[in-house]
Amino acid sequence: MAKFISIRNIRFMIKEVFDVKSLTIHDYYGNHNEKMFDMVIDEALKLAVKLMYPVLEEMDRNQPVLEGGEVKVHKSVKKIMKEFGQGGWIASGFSEEHGGDQIPIIIRGIASFIFAASNYSASAYPLLTTGAADLITSFGSQELIDTYVGKMLDGEWQGTMALTEPQAGSSLSDITTSAVPDKNGRFKIKGVKIFISAGDHDGVENIIHLMLAKIENAPPGAKGISLFVVPKKRFDDLDGKGKGKLVSNDITTTSVYHKLGYRGTPAVEISMGEKDNCYGWLVGKENQGLILMFQMMNEARISVGLASCAIASAAYLAALEYTENRPQGRPVTNKDSQIKQIPIIEHADVKRMLLFQKSIVEGSLSLILQCCMYADLIKVTTGAKKEKYELLLDLLTPVAKAFPSEYGILSTSTAIQCFGGYGYCDDFPVELYFRDIRIHAIHEGTTGIQGMDLLGRKIVIKDGKAGLFFLEEVKQTIKIAMKVPELEFFAGQLESSMKQLEKVVGFLFNIAGKKGIDTYLSDASLFLEFYGLIVISWQWLIQGIAAEKALSKDSSKKDKNFYQGKLFTMNYFFRYELPKIYGLASRLMDGDNLTINMKTEYFKD
Amino acid sequence: MAKFISIRNIRFMIKEVFDVKSLTIHDYYGNHNEKMFDMVIDEALKLAVKLMYPVLEEMDRNQPVLEGGEVKVHKSVKKIMKEFGQGGWIASGFSEEHGGDQIPIIIRGIASFIFAASNYSASAYPLLTTGAADLITSFGSQELIDTYVGKMLDGEWQGTMALTEPQAGSSLSDITTSAVPDKNGRFKIKGVKIFISAGDHDGVENIIHLMLAKIENAPPGAKGISLFVVPKKRFDDLDGKGKGKLVSNDITTTSVYHKLGYRGTPAVEISMGEKDNCYGWLVGKENQGLILMFQMMNEARISVGLASCAIASAAYLAALEYTENRPQGRPVTNKDSQIKQIPIIEHADVKRMLLFQKSIVEGSLSLILQCCMYADLIKVTTGAKKEKYELLLDLLTPVAKAFPSEYGILSTSTAIQCFGGYGYCDDFPVELYFRDIRIHAIHEGTTGIQGMDLLGRKIVIKDGKAGLFFLEEVKQTIKIAMKVPELEFFAGQLESSMKQLEKVVGFLFNIAGKKGIDTYLSDASLFLEFYGLIVISWQWLIQGIAAEKALSKDSSKKDKNFYQGKLFTMNYFFRYELPKIYGLASRLMDGDNLTINMKTEYFKD
Repeated sequence: MAKFISIRNIRFMIKEVFDVKSLTIHDYYGNHNEKMFDMVIDEALKLAVKLMYPVLEEMDRNQPVLEGGEVKVHKSVKKIMKEFGQGGWIASGFSEEHGGDQIPIIIRGIASFIFAASNYSASAYPLLTTGAADLITSFGSQELIDTYVGKMLDGEWQGTMALTEPQAGSSLSDITTSAVPDKNGRFKIKGVKIFISAGDHDGVENIIHLMLAKIENAPPGAKGISLFVVPKKRFDDLDGKGKGKLVSNDITTTSVYHKLGYRGTPAVEISMGEKDNCYGWLVGKENQGLILMFQMMNEARISVGLASCAIASAAYLAALEYTENRPQGRPVTNKDSQIKQIPIIEHADVKRMLLFQKSIVEGSLSLILQCCMYADLIKVTTGAKKEKYELLLDLLTPVAKAFPSEYGILSTSTAIQCFGGYGYCDDFPVELYFRDIRIHAIHEGTTGIQGMDLLGRKIVIKDGKAGLFFLEEVKQTIKIAMKVPELEFFAGQLESSMKQLEKVVGFLFNIAGKKGIDTYLSDASLFLEFYGLIVISWQWLIQGIAAEKALSKDSSKKDKNFYQGKLFTMNYFFRYELPKIYGLASRLMDGDNLTINMKTEYFKD
Repeated sequence: MAKFISIRNIRFMIKEVFDVKSLTIHDYYGNHNEKMFDMVIDEALKLAVKLMYPVLEEMDRNQPVLEGGEVKVHKSVKKIMKEFGQGGWIASGFSEEHGGDQIPIIIRGIASFIFAASNYSASAYPLLTTGAADLITSFGSQELIDTYVGKMLDGEWQGTMALTEPQAGSSLSDITTSAVPDKNGRFKIKGVKIFISAGDHDGVENIIHLMLAKIENAPPGAKGISLFVVPKKRFDDLDGKGKGKLVSNDITTTSVYHKLGYRGTPAVEISMGEKDNCYGWLVGKENQGLILMFQMMNEARISVGLASCAIASAAYLAALEYTENRPQGRPVTNKDSQIKQIPIIEHADVKRMLLFQKSIVEGSLSLILQCCMYADLIKVTTGAKKEKYELLLDLLTPVAKAFPSEYGILSTSTAIQCFGGYGYCDDFPVELYFRDIRIHAIHEGTTGIQGMDLLGRKIVIKDGKAGLFFLEEVKQTIKIAMKVPELEFFAGQLESSMKQLEKVVGFLFNIAGKKGIDTYLSDASLFLEFYGLIVISWQWLIQGIAAEKALSKDSSKKDKNFYQGKLFTMNYFFRYELPKIYGLASRLMDGDNLTINMKTEYFKD
């Protein structure tokens, strides 16, 4: 069995970096302890090894098909949903009141990481169900909860997010799916939704869409969007809530997409109300749909970042194993063809490629777990503290979504490169990882959207309060690192980069005033990369502190290697990746309006 | 029919940038004129549109299969080889003496660009045949020429390069395929070769492998490698040279790879001499194989760069068309959902993504055509002039191979991003381009190998004479640009970057002396990227000069848009891409030996 995650690294993260057990002093997490966390992680790994990794390639090569009006998926999907339901994995993060285990978000995150690393497509089914059920639980009526959530958490029904429409990709304010109230308190739904992951399949009994639609006469644009539960099959009584038998809810699957990767999960187009017989039930208040959906969306964005780390982790560990075992070439200093070839991992350039991957995988995972910790702290704090964690989570969400997904493309591409020609062939799964990961810079808001979110909203809300909290967090890390002689250099580098950040933001604020918001936002994607490199450096310094601390104690030979690996990888990130911010800063402070002045007709010939 | 190349840009390159007709003053090209060049290009485009682009997706989705010991390929391969043979495309660059048209290499290059942009897999069959036939013509005996070259140029027989073996990927000195002379002047061949493109298929009557093998008792390593013609079928007379009927030459196709992309061309594994009945014929002298093969290899490397540009061109133009026609969202300065959505090309971030692609495609193409011009000038000059062009071509070959193939991955990935979710689906061919292009950083020498070639050989041979010639060329460009006020800024930027290059090279030479060759070479891949960014900036400045010159004359409105597009794209490259060299330089001059000190066991956990 190939290794797709490092369990040693996970233990390092939860024990030495984030001290997750500290959460258990709070009432909400009081029933847990570190041993239980370990057990959860062990069980997740067992499940991934037993159920998910073995069908990784099979699910990729046998794509879902639309047959007789229904999407057929790999037979293991039914088993996975069932085991995830019965094992409590879909519900694990839910409160005890709603049938869950109140497991900290960070531990759930690690379980998701393990599942996604073993088989991203397979992991999407239960994950989407959790998200949808969470939304109903948070904002739905008791009747909706009673009708849907139990079956979803048991893995019998699939949950989805149904947002996108053909004419409204990234522009949700332009959706046209309509909802007309009837006298029974339900709504008649009509419209077309596209790119719905797991939007139809035969691995479950029913599909529950959490869907955005516009109630007739609602205000135009985003302010007129409402959230509905629209099931594939509804109960045949008038109010459709949990009584009678299941009947068709007039939703037709009109096509299943053929995708570059992420092939084990169908993305479908559905048409609702062709026979004027599709019903939906409002979740929360009218016209609040986008706000409610964003709870799920923000979690989904973190999940996308996490899945990117996970796929990149599997690709990196595959490349590591290959390079350790593949003899090829000789040391630069001794090219004598009579001596034995060396494993390619001994070539400096191969080590560089591995360090790049390791730095992206473990640096990004660290950021995601940091976000999970903030989310956990939001749950157990109040007042100013809670606000601080909320703002930090808001600020870092676009980075946690975009950085792993963009650098993940490069990381999996580098994994292919480590394999040479074999990496281009399906003898090894790295080409699959390269295909799978490419979705993540697109779905749940493209990288361009994340850049606008960071620079256009998160940096400026509440007079930049989020940014100040971030600065505080980084300063705290720098202060600790400065006391460790081995880390002084890196702390200094991070400090300089924060000054660079300040300079860039100052420049951009100034230009926003002078040249307008369009100029301010024109390089938002670059700003996002710039910001991301600094954020990941911060996370590497945090890991460096933990590694130095461990090395200063007695540790076994094997452990010493692990910590040395951490320090070298931190070193790599600071010396090879962080310097990219200087080129980006020079661009961000150019202020020449190039992309605004470039006219569409100049592209013509 | 979708557009996959810009014919306007091609005319700009050959008329305004490189003045290709100047070649016709030389005897060798004296029979040609500009009108004929135009005709060749028009014909190439017609062929690509008629024969190749229409089967792009079909060839991708119906991969070659191994059936009954033979590889079956798409039926159009037979037609393509036939038309390419009959139309003189395989032979076009050959001398008239050898049945060709003596077409300049740069014009052949443009034809190859068009073919590869329309359907890279389809274009590989004739291209590989040209390369193999060229090698026989250059170094083979008259008998070998008479036996093989005619059929190959006619498209009846396929040519290949058979180098790689399972235990010797990038390390050719470790090949073990053996050649034992028999009394008839031929050699008994035994061994296994892998990853042979078009190494077996039913679109031709015979496959002619140009193969590296070791004659028994040859010196060890690279010095003991010889080059052979090893046909799939040989003539049944004793010497196998063009008499009798074709019989099996004891070569078995043992497998066909399943690849990420480039699926229309089979890559196969073959086993020779299982029945001790496989014969090969020596090309050139014994033990000179690697030197001879490098003639083909160097051309193949330029071809790989060219194919990368071509695929990126097709992806860019698909993205351009899509973004012009896809309405989505509203201007940042007017988000009113009541107004109509705008085409996404009007968003600054989308323009940035298009400019990135355009700058990579047209900047790289310019470099490749520059290399072709040098190759043409080598053919028609002698003495010191010839040496200069040879050294420049040698120096720039690794850049021309690696830069387009590495940045091409990013460029096609950006094309996907322009399409959003649709880019991830096979409704559009961009996902195919993203898969196809990924091979180019691997085959014909990985990027790591190119980096070592540039820094370890090309920069240092003849006391750095190649680098000095390059400096001269760039200085000449800067001098001209400095006289055009609109270009002064860019000339200055290029000048500074050349100083940066000088500094980096100086630092590296110094470190080579102090710390050894392994440290000197440890970041060769980064040096290659650093160098590539400067080289492409130089090519953009050359294009900028031509565009400014054209704008200073009367030109039509449409032409003005084209030239403005050129200037904006040059501007983009200098402002967004070139600044990356400063981060790279800071890394290259760090000198901390990070990847050398990182031990293999530190990767373990």
